[in-house]
Amino acid sequence: MIILYGSPLSGNTHKVRMALAFLGLPRDERLTDAAARQSGAFAALTPMRQIPLFVDDGFALRDSQAILALLAARHRPGEWDGHTPEERGAIMLWLSHAANEIANGPATLRLARKFGLAIPEDHAAAVTARILPVVEAHLERRDWLAGDRLTIADLAASPYLALIGDAGIDLAGWPAIHAWTRRIAALPAFPEMPGWPAEGVI
Amino acid sequence: MIILYGSPLSGNTHKVRMALAFLGLPRDERLTDAAARQSGAFAALTPMRQIPLFVDDGFALRDSQAILALLAARHRPGEWDGHTPEERGAIMLWLSHAANEIANGPATLRLARKFGLAIPEDHAAAVTARILPVVEAHLERRDWLAGDRLTIADLAASPYLALIGDAGIDLAGWPAIHAWTRRIAALPAFPEMPGWPAEGVI
Repeated sequence: MIILYGSPLSGNTHKVRMALAFLGLPRDERLTDAAARQSGAFAALTPMRQIPLFVDDGFALRDSQAILALLAARHRPGEWDGHTPEERGAIMLWLSHAANEIANGPATLRLARKFGLAIPEDHAAAVTARILPVVEAHLERRDWLAGDRLTIADLAASPYLALIGDAGIDLAGWPAIHAWTRRIAALPAFPEMPGWPAEGVI
Repeated sequence: MIILYGSPLSGNTHKVRMALAFLGLPRDERLTDAAARQSGAFAALTPMRQIPLFVDDGFALRDSQAILALLAARHRPGEWDGHTPEERGAIMLWLSHAANEIANGPATLRLARKFGLAIPEDHAAAVTARILPVVEAHLERRDWLAGDRLTIADLAASPYLALIGDAGIDLAGWPAIHAWTRRIAALPAFPEMPGWPAEGVI
């Protein structure tokens, strides 16, 4: 059984939760709050003490993008991680944006504005302002970030964009991003999270 | 012919330069300085106006990690990007660290301290202090970041760690990282860059 250390409100956890739900894989999800992350037992599993952490039969892997890459290669090779080198590169681009601009922009702004963490907002707001128009323009011309179907690019990039309301930004102001997050939320087996409800067929 | 828009002092450009050199692929490297990046012609190629930018027969791809993923899938599938799902995940972990912690830590600190960009140093210093011990501990037990050979994990993560002297940090204080950057610099066809010289056989 796959063990997923995470939190219901964590967008990074949700990336993996979506992948496991779409794959139909059972998971033992273990709530790992701030206190649990500071424990020595958790640090022994993952040196940066971050969630999500994926453990499967003794193999542990941190970083949401890395876990998505593992699951894609195991269960949806090609379909989820690229049939061609060009697709592989296009998907990796969005994994980079998820790891950098989306994490340090919208996700960080959400931590400050929704959860009240003492984080300077200026940098996060500037990164958010830089990445949103790039994603919006990209999605104006297509349904999915890379290729013609859902890939791990969409799984990695979508949660913190779906949740930008938590960061004080109206998702309705970004219609192509909004439509794409609803498209994902309409997929069979989509797992809801607070702030990102499932959709009927759209 | 592959066109690589970049700069001799850019560690991100160097990731791709190393890959092309190790693959023995000719490149038309076009110096793209700050002024060139602001041109409309460059913006038409890449919306974030960042280097490196890879163009091959009309196919353009930004983001150094994405370009490495493309080149690995094309020319060294398995060897450079993972033979197994577990290796694929382990490599992706370091691509995430390269895109996030290494970019926002040592690379940003270098921009501030070597090139005098007006960037607040506190956040970059904190990220650097967090990631360096993780990399050092990982490399104390192994020669390469993932698997038993050079992969795109090493290409993505190494330049800004090899160049931490430019960020005001003594690489000699991190002996496992230092040995690893010298191991890469001793590979046949390693392209030198200012601050990271080639090594004889070590």
